[in-house]
This record gives sequence, C-alpha cells and structure tokens, in this order.
Amino acid sequence: MPASIVSGHTEVLAILGDPIRQVRTPALVNAEIARRGLDAVLVPLQVSESGLGEAVAGLRRSGNVRGAVVTMPHKQRVTALVQRLSSGARRIGACNVIRFAPDRTVHGENTDGHALVSALTAAGVCPAGADVFLAGAGGAGSSIGFALAGAGVSRLAIHNRNHARAEELADNIRAQHPGIAVEVCGPDPKQARIVVNATSVGLHPGLRELPFKPEITMADAVVDIVISPRPTALVEAARRQGITVVDGEDMLRAQVAAFVDFMLGVPSTSPNHHRPAGQKG
Amino acid sequence: MPASIVSGHTEVLAILGDPIRQVRTPALVNAEIARRGLDAVLVPLQVSESGLGEAVAGLRRSGNVRGAVVTMPHKQRVTALVQRLSSGARRIGACNVIRFAPDRTVHGENTDGHALVSALTAAGVCPAGADVFLAGAGGAGSSIGFALAGAGVSRLAIHNRNHARAEELADNIRAQHPGIAVEVCGPDPKQARIVVNATSVGLHPGLRELPFKPEITMADAVVDIVISPRPTALVEAARRQGITVVDGEDMLRAQVAAFVDFMLGVPSTSPNHHRPAGQKG
Repeated sequence: MPASIVSGHTEVLAILGDPIRQVRTPALVNAEIARRGLDAVLVPLQVSESGLGEAVAGLRRSGNVRGAVVTMPHKQRVTALVQRLSSGARRIGACNVIRFAPDRTVHGENTDGHALVSALTAAGVCPAGADVFLAGAGGAGSSIGFALAGAGVSRLAIHNRNHARAEELADNIRAQHPGIAVEVCGPDPKQARIVVNATSVGLHPGLRELPFKPEITMADAVVDIVISPRPTALVEAARRQGITVVDGEDMLRAQVAAFVDFMLGVPSTSPNHHRPAGQKG
Repeated sequence: MPASIVSGHTEVLAILGDPIRQVRTPALVNAEIARRGLDAVLVPLQVSESGLGEAVAGLRRSGNVRGAVVTMPHKQRVTALVQRLSSGARRIGACNVIRFAPDRTVHGENTDGHALVSALTAAGVCPAGADVFLAGAGGAGSSIGFALAGAGVSRLAIHNRNHARAEELADNIRAQHPGIAVEVCGPDPKQARIVVNATSVGLHPGLRELPFKPEITMADAVVDIVISPRPTALVEAARRQGITVVDGEDMLRAQVAAFVDFMLGVPSTSPNHHRPAGQKG
C-alpha cells in the first residue's frame, strides 16, 4: 500500500530532531513500509531539546503511534523518557529509536553502530583486525565505538572536543572489550585504516570545515555519519583520494529495516539479535 | 506533490479523535493538499479524552506541525486548550479545527455548521425559510444549529437526550436570532422539511438504531453527520423514501478546503469570511 493512502487505519511513526529539514529517514522508511505492504507512515517532527519530554508524552498518548526514530540532539536525553532500554542502548547511554508498546510503555534501542558495521561490510571493508580512528564520543560515536569493538577491530583511537567524554567512552569500551587497544587521541587519524566522523561537523552546508585533520591518505575507508549536505567536505576529500566512502545515507539505508522492525515490534530482526558470528555482547 | 513523498521539509497536520479508524479526513485532506501542490501530510492520531491535553501539548512543541482537525469526543474539551478562539467557535463552545500559529499559540475555529449549509445548498436544498428538526446539541449540533439559524430557517426544533443542553442551545440561538422560532422537542421530526442527525448514533456499524423516530416522510432533505459506516441506517431509510440525503462525507468534502486553509493560516477563505449574503452573525 503506498504511503499516500493515509486513512484512519494508518499507524503513525515519527522522526524527532532539531534541525529536521535535512533528514532522509522519512523517504527511506516510507519506501520500506511500502515495500512490506504495511499501512503506516513516518512523519518528521521538529522538536527542540526543551520540547522533547512533551513531544514524546504526546506521541505516547496517541494510541496509533507505534514509535519514533530519534536523531540529533535527542539521542542521549531521550533515554530518560524510556521505561525499557535495551542492553546496548543502556551501555551507550543513547537511543536512536523508540517504540510505544501496546501498554504504552516506551522501549528504546540503538541501531547506529550495528548499521555502520553492516554498511562497512556491504562496501567491502571488513572491520575485524582494523586500526580505527573515531571522531565523536556522543550518542552516535558511542554506539559506533561499541559496535566496531564488537566487530573485532585491533585498535580504536577516539577523538572528541570534550576530552573527558572521550576518556569515559574509552574506559567503557575497554571494560567490555579488554583485548582491544582503545585510546584517546588528538584530531589526527595518522595510520588508521578506517576513519569515522561521528560528530555533527559537516552538517551545516555553509561550513566546509573538516572534523579532523584531512591526512586520511592511509585509510582504506572513510565513514561520515552526516546525512546532508551530500557530499560533505570530508566525503569529497576522501573521494578525491580514491578512498572507499560510507556516508550517512549508506548507514541510514543499512538501518531502515531495523528501525521499522523495532518500531513495529518485530522481534526477530532486532539489531541485537543479528550480530555477526564471533561478535561479543 | 503526492503525499507519499514525505521528507524532512514536509509540514504535518493531524486529526485527533477516539475512535479514529473510521475517519475519512486523512484521504480527503491529503487529496486537497496534493491538488494544491503543497508539501504537507495529515495523519490520524487516536487520542482518548484523558490524553487530549498531552497530545495537543506535544503537537504544539513540534515546530513543523501546523494544525489539527478535531473530532469526537474532543470538540468541546479542546476549547480549553486554545488561546485564540474564533467568535463562531466561542459562541458554540466547540472547535473542529485548531492551528498552531508561528508563535505556537493555539487558534481554534469551527467549520461544521458552515459545511452543512454549503453541502445542503450544493444538494439543491435551500435552508432559508425551512422548518428544521435537529437531533443533537453537542459540538456539531451547536455549530449546525447556529449556521442554520444564520442561513435563515423559519423554525428550528432541537432534540437532545440531555434536555437541559438542548434548552441551553435553544436559548443561545434565540438570543442571536430572535426572529426564528427555536424550540426544544422530543424524538419526532413531525412536519420538518430538513431533518438533521448531529448525534453520534449510527457511528457503530453493529447497531442499526436511528437517532429519532423514522417518520421523515415530510422531509425534503435528511442530513446525517456520521461519516462511517456508509450508509447509516438513517441514510438508508431516507433513500428508501426518495428523500435527498446529505451525509457525513458530503459535509466533510464541503469543509476540507476550509480545514486546510485554517490550519495553514490562509485567512481569505476562513469560513467566517464566506457567509452567504444576508446571513447574520
């Protein structure tokens, strides 16, 4: 059923973010909904940080709203509004998707890191054994750091403007994955083979700044989670150097199915049930 | 632009009601949006009476939500959540559509009565000078009663299960329209030429009950505001007798443009600015 046929029977999903105009999730999730023949529609909601509590409460009171994708700047703050947090989301301290259960309790999950590992693998880049530079230790950065560690990288160097936050994330990943060299570093990817931007630098079309020094010539792959503008300055620089690129839309495509499954409560394809063999929780 | 292409730029509208599955507004409003080439989508939200305040607060905090159609059972209760009520809605004590202004104050309007007069006229039935029987003195009934009085009916007989409420509405209409014979009556349309069901009787497909005695043989026209099931028992009875019928969907079609105009803040086609010549406020 095409998403254009919205009726009284249609179930409603949302994406909560600020800014919201740049999001690609509605087009991708609605295409996935149409592909599955479901009667649902995902709409964008531009919600400020101060409005998040009221916005989620309002959706929760709307009985045919099944869930919401949660994007910047809400991924961490929304966990306080969730009654049942997945173990992965709890460890990271951030959700990128919530579901309203039939009893209207709010369940939260984080699919960011899983999507990145899937997108990297789909691009022919295997994270196992790789030396990785990760810029950003916020919600997305945390999720990606844990997922890369779970996928068996050999070394993970974390850069973050707020140094203490980078140290905290490094400590948490080390505690879960003692076999991996996790360290905090400056804004220089050095010899890393996989370079990941998990900051919002690049989100504003006017600014062509890079999230770290552009010496990425050693890299096999560059990942930029920023969805729009396409391409970001980082992605452009990587392409000029012939480096494999995974961008925000690649990641988004990789997790669209997981978003829909989680919001509609399809248990079998929840990201935590689809870890590659050998990945530790 | 078809409603299927929901993006981050899309503005969001809603319809609030309980039950919600029977509503036809999403299909009709989304078709009107497509016809006008707007980038907006209307979604259904099933909101209980106890959840209305939180649901409206949540929509108000979502900056790209422009407005909501309000249906049963919220039309009266929602007025307490509105900061700027039109004179028509204030007189009736009920709104069927709200708008979130750029400063996020909530404005309320009632287009029910205007839509009924438009739909009757479109069906070739002129309310001026007519003897009218009106069942229902709730939000829809009040709006319709005032609009029919404004359209110059000669007599208006009001039936309502709650007798006191019928008396109150009759008093209010008399005060505005002293030249019209307004009275409270039992469940018998008698000699009325226009018979209006503005109650929710008929809304439940299992029950084939009628909102009043089926002696409608004197009528030129029968109006049933119930949208679904189509046809209602009342509409079936009227059609069997060869009487002109205006049903809930006819009314809805007549007010779809008014809904969109009001929610998107198009001032020139607000229903209160389109009264037929000679109609008194």
